[in-house]
Amino acid sequence: MPLVVVGSVALDTIETPLGKREEVLGGSAVYFAWAASYFTPVRLVGVVGEDWPEEYTKLLESRRIDLTGLTRMPGGKTFRWHGRYFDDMNRRETIDVQLNVMAEFDPVLPEACRRAPFVFLANGSTRMQLRVLDQCVGASLVVADTMDHWIRTERPQLEELLRRIGGLVLNESEAQLLTGETNLIRAGRRALQMGPQFVVIKKGEHGAMFFSRHETYVLPAYPTENVVDPTGAGDSFAGGMMGFLAEKNNFDPVTLKEAMAYGILVASFTVEDFSLDRLRKIERNDLERRMAEYRRMLSF
Amino acid sequence: MPLVVVGSVALDTIETPLGKREEVLGGSAVYFAWAASYFTPVRLVGVVGEDWPEEYTKLLESRRIDLTGLTRMPGGKTFRWHGRYFDDMNRRETIDVQLNVMAEFDPVLPEACRRAPFVFLANGSTRMQLRVLDQCVGASLVVADTMDHWIRTERPQLEELLRRIGGLVLNESEAQLLTGETNLIRAGRRALQMGPQFVVIKKGEHGAMFFSRHETYVLPAYPTENVVDPTGAGDSFAGGMMGFLAEKNNFDPVTLKEAMAYGILVASFTVEDFSLDRLRKIERNDLERRMAEYRRMLSF
Repeated sequence: MPLVVVGSVALDTIETPLGKREEVLGGSAVYFAWAASYFTPVRLVGVVGEDWPEEYTKLLESRRIDLTGLTRMPGGKTFRWHGRYFDDMNRRETIDVQLNVMAEFDPVLPEACRRAPFVFLANGSTRMQLRVLDQCVGASLVVADTMDHWIRTERPQLEELLRRIGGLVLNESEAQLLTGETNLIRAGRRALQMGPQFVVIKKGEHGAMFFSRHETYVLPAYPTENVVDPTGAGDSFAGGMMGFLAEKNNFDPVTLKEAMAYGILVASFTVEDFSLDRLRKIERNDLERRMAEYRRMLSF
Repeated sequence: MPLVVVGSVALDTIETPLGKREEVLGGSAVYFAWAASYFTPVRLVGVVGEDWPEEYTKLLESRRIDLTGLTRMPGGKTFRWHGRYFDDMNRRETIDVQLNVMAEFDPVLPEACRRAPFVFLANGSTRMQLRVLDQCVGASLVVADTMDHWIRTERPQLEELLRRIGGLVLNESEAQLLTGETNLIRAGRRALQMGPQFVVIKKGEHGAMFFSRHETYVLPAYPTENVVDPTGAGDSFAGGMMGFLAEKNNFDPVTLKEAMAYGILVASFTVEDFSLDRLRKIERNDLERRMAEYRRMLSF
């Protein structure tokens, strides 16, 4: 089934202990869409400037990613993010952000996107996420991400959003900030009480936790020693997860758990090189091979 | 099969955000022995002072814990540790340590301990661990723990120890310090090259990683929301793991993985109350129930 993602499209400058890349392809919607494209056709909704390299459009279209919803703003500049990772790759600092065309991002969804059954609201203001949600008239499952900034500044809107979506995906510190709970299990259960049918807490190199009314579980990350650039791991996780759900056209508990595992595995590839360089080299069968190893790892 | 543990026996004073307990039963050998006692008879080798409460001796003997190797030093005082946990329970500070009788701890193993096939060298100086190792003439598997302090101050002795033992158990920061690698997978593989047949890196609330020449895997922690006191979780993990290996009288890869899972589950009970208070209330069937849930959690 078609899957829509609404979020940022960026030119990233990334510094890690292993090197630096300037103005490379990035953004939450891009990582998500690529990760999901192993499983299902994806429609990306976002905005770029006149400086957007045409080769990136071709690259994304070479996957099953429909860019009808990607607006190119005349005279505008593409969103830029510049970050630096510390030695352990688990912490990073933002050196510079230039919102550019993202500052005015207020998407009008093409008809095909409005009717899509699976929707992911990636990183963006909660007000914008709500306006997109109003347009998703055909959605059977809407999942949203959020960030510290929106939890702090758009709390009432976020509470409304949580009452209206099926799933919430967020990281550890965001879960703690949202709920005031330091224990992640309490945090996850508390977030669940705020409305969504399920909550996923991403723990980076430690995997991901799932919460619904019926179950709580943790799946570990796939152990990779080649961590080159963690950028986009969280969005790739969400893309792999949602892509699998859309492929199966199902989000029952059994499918959701398998989807979590696929999300974890796509993310484990993402971090093995800068930008989308590692994902560009893999196909579905590489995911399946790693899945077989992952299942073996977890059986005893 | 009998299992010997050599390590500290302590009176702990513990402060967590949820409360404080003074001079309660603790120490690496105590947590280890209790955890292992669900699986196999344990012989504890340690030292206490004249102030050691007789009730604690009775309590340990009420489990399958043989205290022939526990020396009571006339005129001595029992080892004391006083620690305080921060809000997230993942970090702690040591407020006070009184080595007392532990300062001179240089155990002479009773004959039954010398002949035991399974041995765990818990927290203690590496020189002391080596002297104990010399006495373990009947051991088929010796596993050791270590600490930042010994990695820094007894490096040559530690390198000798690593060449002579079957398994090494250590936590994240210790693995990084030992190997100079920040990536835990590289750290684990590097530690393996230093001699042992297997290495386990304990990750606290994030589970544990296993490394041998043939495989690398991660198992997540069992998700418990009732984290009251993390003291002894690592030693309980090791006790559950070694106890299961001793029960099976085997340490092949299949048994080791199941042993890791039991270690994780015993530790998940340990943290649910102060000192050994939670473990005092459970029996083997409680472990088996949680194991069934854990297996369900990891299957998809």
